[in-house]
Parts: sequence; structure tokens; C-alpha cells
Amino acid sequence: MENEKRPELVIARIIEFLDAKKYIRARDEILKFDAVETAEALEEILEKPGIECAVILFRMLPKDVSVDVFSYLPVDDQLAIINAITDKEVKYIIDELDFDDMIDVLEELPANIVDKILEKTPKEERKLINTFLHYPEDSAGSLMTPDYISLQKNMTAGEAMAHIRAVGMDSETIYTCYVKDRGRKLIGIVSLRALVVAESDAPIAGMLNGDMVYVHVYDDQEKVSETFKRYGFLAIPVVDNEERLVGIITVDDILDVIEEEYNEDVERMAGVLDSGDAEYLDTGVFKHVASRLPWLIFLMISAMLTGTIIRSFEALLSNAISLAAYLPMLMGTGGNSGSQSATLIIRGMATGDLELRDAMRVLWKEVRISLIIGLVLSSLNFAKILLLDRESIWVAVTVCLAMLVIVTLAKCIGGLMPMLAKRIGIDPALMAAPMISSLTDLITCISYFTLATVILSI
Amino acid sequence: MENEKRPELVIARIIEFLDAKKYIRARDEILKFDAVETAEALEEILEKPGIECAVILFRMLPKDVSVDVFSYLPVDDQLAIINAITDKEVKYIIDELDFDDMIDVLEELPANIVDKILEKTPKEERKLINTFLHYPEDSAGSLMTPDYISLQKNMTAGEAMAHIRAVGMDSETIYTCYVKDRGRKLIGIVSLRALVVAESDAPIAGMLNGDMVYVHVYDDQEKVSETFKRYGFLAIPVVDNEERLVGIITVDDILDVIEEEYNEDVERMAGVLDSGDAEYLDTGVFKHVASRLPWLIFLMISAMLTGTIIRSFEALLSNAISLAAYLPMLMGTGGNSGSQSATLIIRGMATGDLELRDAMRVLWKEVRISLIIGLVLSSLNFAKILLLDRESIWVAVTVCLAMLVIVTLAKCIGGLMPMLAKRIGIDPALMAAPMISSLTDLITCISYFTLATVILSI
Repeated sequence: MENEKRPELVIARIIEFLDAKKYIRARDEILKFDAVETAEALEEILEKPGIECAVILFRMLPKDVSVDVFSYLPVDDQLAIINAITDKEVKYIIDELDFDDMIDVLEELPANIVDKILEKTPKEERKLINTFLHYPEDSAGSLMTPDYISLQKNMTAGEAMAHIRAVGMDSETIYTCYVKDRGRKLIGIVSLRALVVAESDAPIAGMLNGDMVYVHVYDDQEKVSETFKRYGFLAIPVVDNEERLVGIITVDDILDVIEEEYNEDVERMAGVLDSGDAEYLDTGVFKHVASRLPWLIFLMISAMLTGTIIRSFEALLSNAISLAAYLPMLMGTGGNSGSQSATLIIRGMATGDLELRDAMRVLWKEVRISLIIGLVLSSLNFAKILLLDRESIWVAVTVCLAMLVIVTLAKCIGGLMPMLAKRIGIDPALMAAPMISSLTDLITCISYFTLATVILSI
Repeated sequence: MENEKRPELVIARIIEFLDAKKYIRARDEILKFDAVETAEALEEILEKPGIECAVILFRMLPKDVSVDVFSYLPVDDQLAIINAITDKEVKYIIDELDFDDMIDVLEELPANIVDKILEKTPKEERKLINTFLHYPEDSAGSLMTPDYISLQKNMTAGEAMAHIRAVGMDSETIYTCYVKDRGRKLIGIVSLRALVVAESDAPIAGMLNGDMVYVHVYDDQEKVSETFKRYGFLAIPVVDNEERLVGIITVDDILDVIEEEYNEDVERMAGVLDSGDAEYLDTGVFKHVASRLPWLIFLMISAMLTGTIIRSFEALLSNAISLAAYLPMLMGTGGNSGSQSATLIIRGMATGDLELRDAMRVLWKEVRISLIIGLVLSSLNFAKILLLDRESIWVAVTVCLAMLVIVTLAKCIGGLMPMLAKRIGIDPALMAAPMISSLTDLITCISYFTLATVILSI
């Protein structure tokens, strides 16, 4: 159905109805969507006709639908809606949200609004919420939910099922149940699957899987997503410093984390400082400048160094001005060769295929790859310089030798720099294209002009 | 525990025992690991002492553990082990693997070995396996499993639970059950959670969620992972062209897909042709060359064009040789500015934040960002050229004006090229750093030398 509904047409129709103030018809249209699609439609409406229309439409949704839709909205849009609806409506939404979604919203709200919302919340729950609000962003604690099924070791499968039936509806996931001892320490897990297929009088102690994998509340979310990738679980328990179970993280929340970590990596590789979760168009011009300028200045300064090298060879250059024409090609090829290697090594280390102790094997492989690539590129250049540019054979020899040296050095640097970065505790993703290019530019100028001085003076 | 066991020490101990031929003790050590850790240890052993040791150890594992461990090994290592064990052992492993893991292994084996393995498989299952083997790699069909719970519309919750108990153990996931009509068309889903909390005589027709999300067998895996990210489901049904349910895809298999798609993206952005799943060290030198050389040649040719531009300004250059010293800095800054923008736009489009119709807003934002960045970088350069390099004010003006023009053009090109690529159906990731740098190099040379000609001839 998803495919037949043509969402963009429905959204266009909804916006038409809104513009014509035919709100009931707009609502009837939007009710054809599921919650995810409704949220996406609201996002667009928030952008185009604007917040007034979006809030009118949001308020006309059935109450239970509205909470679901709200949970799928981006944080910014959630805040926009919260600011535009009554306190009572806010309270209803906050109460009905899954615990971890609620925490996400509360984290973004100003403290005085949070206090107002929590005013009438039972003391116990308020305490729990406050604990959760204090976990650092990006920690396992900030991702977890306290809504899980907790069983006693001496229960039977039948008792466990009865317990799940009694509390189950409120739990975000009931598919893995956690068994704790009296000190709230986690002693094992039982899957709902095992409970369902078991005889009802079978003791759960016999189905207990004690070989658990868990994370700590203060573990970074990157570690959490690694653990999910490694084990392929649906949920992972989170323990505190005393190894007591405090919550669980479900795999659906991890998909977002993986995307976030990925964006962070890619941005670092392109020399952009972490821009956070903000969307491109929602980020102001000055924030964009702030996240891009520092690296550009840093890289510009290192490029000035390259300029200084060129200045010191000015005498050579003015005698053989045609040498300058090959510099961009050599610098470009060096930079590209180096960043290819750097990218492959960064990825290899991120996925765990490559370790620091593989450095020598990486070097040996890059040297062989460079020699082959260098020879191919040099031959192409040699022919081009002699036949098309009609330069002297000595210029051709200089450029081709320089090419071989530059590709080899660039690939070795590209291969080793990310490993070195990791060794000294810097994120290897920072050693990507821009950094490697700056370094290879410098090396390119030095090798090229040194070779030229030697060869052309013969 | 994971943290306390110090896996690297245990592995070192296992390898010592293997070297000393103390196989029983090696096995006792490895049994301390869970299946994932055992698979990781075997991977290392396959690399270092080698296949003989790994196979001895693998054979000593309890049979059920060995299948589990096998399923966590990378495909290459799975094939190495299959080639080293007896046909009977292979048959046992293949039979015991989850259906989708089995398909993954069979896909990699030569056809004659597959035929031999399938010889004694019941006809019906052989037919199913053959169907699955024919779905294109990277399609939804190649990711799915036919092991799901299928219910009748007229069942009660109690009957459904009884059915699940009867068949459940073999299903990869029993947490979502699928209801089909007589023509095998999917008409709705029921979660195990709903069944567990329902009264046992409640008809499932009442719990049916008919607003389903599904994918088609031939959909690309990227679409499948987008759907998972969008909805946060644990499993998604897969239908054929007649909309009949043929299998389901579970979220744990999607984590690998996301990683794969991510690697593909990053490699494309660095100008490396798709290297597939192969690990860096396992890939031969010539394969590395093949995946890197084409882009290097392509980019080198475009850099030659830049060289041609420089040659055409040779007269200007020999009159003002110091201009050459600023070329690397301008080219570097242009390239970096452009690839920052390109990366942000590529990511924005990948996550759905940016659409093609946003092109004008992107352009307007990039222009404002560039002007600020360009002014800051120009001022720094102006001071440096006058105070440190002691060049004439006209050189400084030329370089600074060029900087402003180049940053602005580079950022606009970096912002629009990925959108243009998407518009004409090319993967935007290809428009990243290397492509953008080549283009900005060309623009840098033209703007810089044109400005120089005009300003310095005054």
C-alpha cells in the first residue's frame, strides 16, 4: 500500500485543504497514513504552511495516534509543537510516550518546563526520570529504558507468562526477560520464545542463559552499537557500577545511533567539525562557518608551507617554467592516492579487520600496490609529455620518476597515518582526505623539485 | 564478564596450547568464550597458526556450539573450514544453520559442491533453496528467511499460541506472526506480545494490524534498510510480484547491510571502486590496484587539463614567478571548501533531510557561508603576504580576491554537484572529495591567473 498511496500527492492535497481552511478534509486525508508517514507529513507542513497549520492538524488527530506520531517527529519539531499546545496536552503526550522517548523530549526542554511537567508525576517516577536525565548524552544510560520484564529465578514458565500478561503491555520489549537476584544483580536472561514453547510447569531456572552480554550505563553509544552489531541481539541489558540491572537498550534505537556515528565519521573525514544532529537547512550560516572554518584555516596554513617550498625553488622554476604545469597533476594524484589508502585503512580499523600490529603488513601491501599504480600512471604521462606536450625527455623523466616516488610515499603515508593516529589516541577519521592531501602536497613539491634539480642540471 | 575475560590473553593462551599440540587444553580455554567470541578467536587462529589448527579446534567443539560458531564466521573462513572437513560434517552444519545463514554459505560455494550437499535434502526444501539461491545479491530476496510464523485469520489467540508452540522452535523469529489469505496474500500481522496478553479465546482477527509495511523480493537492500530505519521494526515481511508473502527479513541482518552500504558510500567518496565485502589484508595486490587505478587515471586526466591552463599562462608566470607559490594554497583551500560542502549535501540527501527542490536554498546558504569564510581566509592571507612574504600589495590583492572567488565557487559547486548527480541518476557519493577537488583545481587556476593578468597589468 505504501507504494500505491503516492505520499507526495496526499501531502500536497492536505496542504491545499489546510490553505483553504478545510481542516476536517485535511484530517481525513492524513488519517490514511500510518504514524511514520503522518509524522513525515507534519514535518513538511511545519516547514511550508507553518506551525499554526501543523498544530491544528496535530490536535485533530485521535489522542492515541497523536502520541505515536509525536514520537516519530524530529526533536526540533517536537519542541515546536510542545510550545504551541496547552500544558494539559503536553502532560498527556509526555505521560503516554515510551519511557526512553519521553526522556529524549525532556532532555531538550528548558528545566522550568520540565519541572512544570513533572509536578504532578508520582514521586518514585519523578526520581527515576531525574536519574535518567542525568546520564551523559551519547552514553548507554541515555539510550536505555527502564521498561523491561524482570522475573524471579524460582518462577515456572507458567508463572512467568502470567507475570508478563499482567505487566506486559507497558513494556517496550517483552521478548527478552531478565532474571535478577535479591541485590538486583542480573543473573541471566530468558527469551519469551523459550517461555512460550516450554511446558507451563517447567522452572525458568532451567532455561536461564547466564552467558549474558551487557553494557555499562556510562559506556559510549559507539560501544553499544558495536555490541549489537557483534551479537545481533534484539535488546541488551545495561548495568550500573555495582553490576545491578538498571535498564535495557533495544535494537531499534541503535539504528539511529549507527547513522549518527556514521555521519560523525564522514564529516570528520571531510574536515567538518561535528555538526551534531542538526539538519543542513536548519543550521544557521554562522554555525556552518564555525564547523568548517577551523579545519580550512589549519589546512591553509599547512598549504602555506608548501608555498614556502615552492618559493625556495623559484630559481629552478624560472629556468624551467614548464615544470609548473605538471605540479597540479602530481599534487592531485598524490592526494588522491593517499586518501584512497587512508579511507580503506580507516574503514578496516573501524570494522575491526585491521589492528595496529598489522602496520607492517599494510605497509608492504601499499608499497606493492603503489609500484604498480605508479608505473601505469608514469607510462601514461611519459607518452603524453613527449607526444602531446613535446617537452624534452628530461622533463618527462623528471615528472615520471616524481610520480612513482609521490604515489608510493602518499600511499604509505595514507596507510600509516590513520594507524599512528589511533596509536596516540586521536580519531583515525581525522586523518582522511584533507589532512593526507596537505601532507602529500608538501612531499610532492619537495620530491618533484629535488628530482628536477638533480636531473635537469645533468 | 566480557570485560573481565581479557579475550586477547585467552586467545594467546589457546594459540600456545595449539602450538604445543595440547589440543584438549586449547579446547577447554575456548569453551570459556561465547559463540561470537569463539568465532573471533577462530578467525585469528585461521590467520596465525593456520587452517589445520583452526579445523582441529573447530571439530573439538560440541556439535551444537560448532554450528553457532560457524554462523558467526566471515564467509571466507566458512569456506576454508568447509573445504577442510568431511562431507558428513558439512551436511550437518548446513542442515542446522538458520535458513538465511545457510543460503549465504551456499551462495558462495561452487555449484557442484552445492549439488552434493543438497543431494539428500527433501525435494520440497531443495526447491525452496534453489529459489532463494536465485535472488540477486543485495536484493531483499537474498536477505530474507522463509522461517516465519504464519497464522489463519479465523484462529483464536489460544489456537495461535498452540500453533506457535508446535512450530516455533524452528522459526528465526516468532515475535511477529503473519496472517495470510487463501491465495497466500498477506492480510495482516499480529505480534506475539498481543497474543500473550490476550484472552485465549479472543479471535486474532480483532488484533490484526492490517496497516502493514512490506518490501518486494527484488527491492534493493538499501531500500530495506531505509524501511527499517524509518519504522524501527524487528522484522519486515517480503512479498513477491503477486503480493504473496514469501519470507521475512529480521533487523539483526540489517545491521550488517547498513555497515556494508556505509562502506560502499565512504569508498566511493574516496574514489575507490566497490571492493565488496573483502577485508583489506585478504584482498590481493592486483585487486587493490583494480579498484583504485580507474579513478586515479580519470582524475589524473582532469588534472592534466589544469596543467594545460597553467601552460597557457606561462608568460604571466615567468614575469611574476612568485604567483606560483600561492597556487597550492589556493587549490588546497578550494578543494577542501568544496568537499566540505559536498559531504554535507551528500549526507543530507542520504538521510532524506535534503531534496532536489531545496537546490536554491542550498545555493543561497553556501553563498553566504562562503563569503564569510572567504573574507576570514583572505584577511589572514593579506596580512601574511604583506608582512611575512613582503610581496607587493598587488600580489596580495590578487591572491585575496582569488581566494574569495575560489571559496565561493568551490562551495557552490560542492553543494550543487551531488544534487545534479542525483538528478541525472548517478550516485551522489561519487561527487565527493576527489571529483570536486579536480573541478575546483581547474576553476582555481583559471580565476587566479585571470585575476592576476587583470590586476598586475594595471
